[in-house]
Amino acid sequence: MPRKTDKRVRLIEAAKVLIHRQGFNLTTLADIAQEADVPLGNVYYYFKTKEAIGEAVIEKRAGEIAEYLTKLEENSDPRARLLSLLHINTEELELIARYGCSVGGLCQELGKQGGSLADQAAKLLHDLLTWSETQFKSLGFGEKSYDLALNLVSNIQGMYLLTHTFKDPKLAIRQAKTIQDWLEKLIASSKTGSTSRSAEVA
Amino acid sequence: MPRKTDKRVRLIEAAKVLIHRQGFNLTTLADIAQEADVPLGNVYYYFKTKEAIGEAVIEKRAGEIAEYLTKLEENSDPRARLLSLLHINTEELELIARYGCSVGGLCQELGKQGGSLADQAAKLLHDLLTWSETQFKSLGFGEKSYDLALNLVSNIQGMYLLTHTFKDPKLAIRQAKTIQDWLEKLIASSKTGSTSRSAEVA
Repeated sequence: MPRKTDKRVRLIEAAKVLIHRQGFNLTTLADIAQEADVPLGNVYYYFKTKEAIGEAVIEKRAGEIAEYLTKLEENSDPRARLLSLLHINTEELELIARYGCSVGGLCQELGKQGGSLADQAAKLLHDLLTWSETQFKSLGFGEKSYDLALNLVSNIQGMYLLTHTFKDPKLAIRQAKTIQDWLEKLIASSKTGSTSRSAEVA
Repeated sequence: MPRKTDKRVRLIEAAKVLIHRQGFNLTTLADIAQEADVPLGNVYYYFKTKEAIGEAVIEKRAGEIAEYLTKLEENSDPRARLLSLLHINTEELELIARYGCSVGGLCQELGKQGGSLADQAAKLLHDLLTWSETQFKSLGFGEKSYDLALNLVSNIQGMYLLTHTFKDPKLAIRQAKTIQDWLEKLIASSKTGSTSRSAEVA
């Protein structure tokens, strides 16, 4: 049965999965071709270099993150939106424990070499940071919003890293609870009206 | 002028630096030989595989961490010891911004493949976690100590990851301040005697 899915789409999806599983540096175009069930010779028609397919994967991740954040915005309450960042389903947790965060891991790996691919990966975390800052602003945290967003995204990334290091999804659940308690207490204190003057970032 | 330093020591030091700079997977035995100024043929006398030199590097890192933590214990105050984890000098910050955390990055990279080298790298973060837990216990946080240590180490790792992603040492300074405020407030509240009952982990 011939596959009808567009080969380019299949190659990007295969590269996305493999880069998450084994990292960008260890993933070859041949691995990607095999995973996508596309002849290696055909790969070069779509992507001249691994860098080019890396760019396409990051672009796909960016689209997925944007879609995820747009979905969170269906909830009119910025507090609930932020808390949703900490609701990670079991399947995702298993993947994080096994392979790490698909975004954080990529930033870590590509960051060492620097260059435009690293900059594009950094943009993914930047998008999450900016979105979180917007939510804190909506909650009335004003100038503190950037530091609060930084604390939130940084804590989530640290949680992912330790979950991956110790291969333990329970660690993420435990640490997500800690971050959630901080967030709930912070927002509750802002609702009592004291926060615009004295919001604590940790 | 012949070098008097032991070749094995030189190879481990070179591997340590290169693995931090470019990651384990991209570092070859030839790179290490060149950096250490040891003929490649000689390398095999000391290390049969890259895995073996990876183990030696992790062992060296473990020794350095143990030494660092022992030095922190010269201060009799566990509060000051914990706060010291957040005092990162400018040179270290520049290295973190450029190449990421030498420990966290290794755990992230090796974790994907798993195996004994990944387990040994994980032990480095485990040592930091256990040490931090001991400090919180000394401060009277009892059963909450593990979660507090997890929060602290996780937050520091997240801070390093974002600093590296955005190549911005100022980000680390900003986030270290946030973590420090949390830690100081937490410990101050424990000193008022209320914490053994109601220590907040975030």
